[in-house]
Amino acid sequence: VTDARIAAARGGDARSVARLLSLVENGDPALPGVLTAVTDGRRARVIGLTGSPGVGKSTTTSALVGALRQRGERVAVLAVDPTSPFSGGALLGDRVRMAEHATDPGVFIRSMATRGHLGGLSAAAPQAIRLLEGLGFDTVLVETVGVGQSEIEVAASADTTVVLLAPGMGDGIQAAKAGILEIGDLFVVNKADREGAETTARELRHMVSLGDAAGGSAPWRPPVLLTVASSGQGIAELLTALDAHGAWLADSGAGEQRRQARAAAEIESLALTALRARIDAARLAELAAEVAAGRCDVFSAAEQLVATRG
Amino acid sequence: VTDARIAAARGGDARSVARLLSLVENGDPALPGVLTAVTDGRRARVIGLTGSPGVGKSTTTSALVGALRQRGERVAVLAVDPTSPFSGGALLGDRVRMAEHATDPGVFIRSMATRGHLGGLSAAAPQAIRLLEGLGFDTVLVETVGVGQSEIEVAASADTTVVLLAPGMGDGIQAAKAGILEIGDLFVVNKADREGAETTARELRHMVSLGDAAGGSAPWRPPVLLTVASSGQGIAELLTALDAHGAWLADSGAGEQRRQARAAAEIESLALTALRARIDAARLAELAAEVAAGRCDVFSAAEQLVATRG
Repeated sequence: VTDARIAAARGGDARSVARLLSLVENGDPALPGVLTAVTDGRRARVIGLTGSPGVGKSTTTSALVGALRQRGERVAVLAVDPTSPFSGGALLGDRVRMAEHATDPGVFIRSMATRGHLGGLSAAAPQAIRLLEGLGFDTVLVETVGVGQSEIEVAASADTTVVLLAPGMGDGIQAAKAGILEIGDLFVVNKADREGAETTARELRHMVSLGDAAGGSAPWRPPVLLTVASSGQGIAELLTALDAHGAWLADSGAGEQRRQARAAAEIESLALTALRARIDAARLAELAAEVAAGRCDVFSAAEQLVATRG
Repeated sequence: VTDARIAAARGGDARSVARLLSLVENGDPALPGVLTAVTDGRRARVIGLTGSPGVGKSTTTSALVGALRQRGERVAVLAVDPTSPFSGGALLGDRVRMAEHATDPGVFIRSMATRGHLGGLSAAAPQAIRLLEGLGFDTVLVETVGVGQSEIEVAASADTTVVLLAPGMGDGIQAAKAGILEIGDLFVVNKADREGAETTARELRHMVSLGDAAGGSAPWRPPVLLTVASSGQGIAELLTALDAHGAWLADSGAGEQRRQARAAAEIESLALTALRARIDAARLAELAAEVAAGRCDVFSAAEQLVATRG
């Protein structure tokens, strides 16, 4: 059944992709087997898009999907809202706005939640990305809301992170505060037909110029672009900039470095989960009682616990 | 040297206590040995005080210290500000306000930061408490700012958590939002000579009455007290309520249960840190490269990593 479903998903059957993705959301025990089955050297370009509500993330994502589809790429969109415990609900509006791609078999769109997923969103997002990669998507767009800790963690799963802003929201200064300068590989001032767009872009360029460029001998300076995603203005330039960052990642070796660092963090986290599961619960309870009574200190107790592992 | 310092600290030498506490702050490798040396069955009562800035935490703490000193107890105060990376600085004002106890050898006061401490505040606070316990303090008052995640974790280290509010700050409603009803064993409306104190207390009592009482057959209903800490009004009643909660913890078994659950969490966290340190870094890098290349999935890689542990 699984093999047939994977084949169907690779063939473009959205329902099969959705069924497999729900294994990630539910932390299903079948997930490791499925990930093993789909992992065969396929790689996808992962692009993260983040920004405050109202900056036009969905419109920009939709325009990018259109541009990537014109190249014949298979595209997956993961819309991730760490503040919402439900899939679908809060992001229904986004999906409606992306309705133009809803019937295109080369596009898969999914709002993602993490009911029951132990590691939360930061663990679920990389697994979902790996699954989509194995299912043969060329590009995975990961859309997150805001720039809180969860969003930064999700952004860390992307090869390229695009930070969206809108003019006149005081975003320039907020940006510096929220640490988005560190996570943005590209900055986009969307709704650039509104007043203040140039000012916001200038502020951003100034702040970017003050930051350290990544990449040592071949540094990458994040460009600041202006778009009006609703009319398609600037989308071609955004795609060109994304390609340029992709080429830089490949040429400088930074892309491979980032992927390996990400993989190491994921493996280590799963390994620690496995080690935690091996801890002898009865022995832990005994030691906790000793510590609570003041007869043993926590460090000695931890040492004994590690020594008595099965 | 350590034994002499521990003896001096137990004898009431504030400087020795401070030196030993800084081992916790700095995550010093000597800490486990010191904790082992001081752990000998001594137990302290740990009282957490939390609330927004301006509700009068330091004044209340200071008044409580005075009341406990009249009983002849040795008292330690840990002032913890998770938003401040420095000890001393941000909390200097607090220490000045507690100046009346500064020269009392039976009272130890320390602002705590967590430079360099790996597990952050939530790991450092319990270790500091255990150290003070081992140094012979009868009561440890832990004062935290606000009710964010870190504060809730710090409050979880206390036997009894007191939540302070002030009238007319819209605190009643904020309280419900911030989840303080769950962490408060006692609620204090301080500055009760101000307008709106009775209203705030009534709102709180109502909200408390809607919540689930802890403790099953012998439930504890958090009382709501009114104080004017600056004049000492209500402090004797607060101490009586603290004693009542202490008696309930002892009689119901809830205190022992809480202490054991806390100890188990601490031991497990230290054990996982130890296990993480044993992970073979070279093997992890190899596996990460395989995963990044799409030749191996993360779950298989984690399994192999756990299997190859030394």
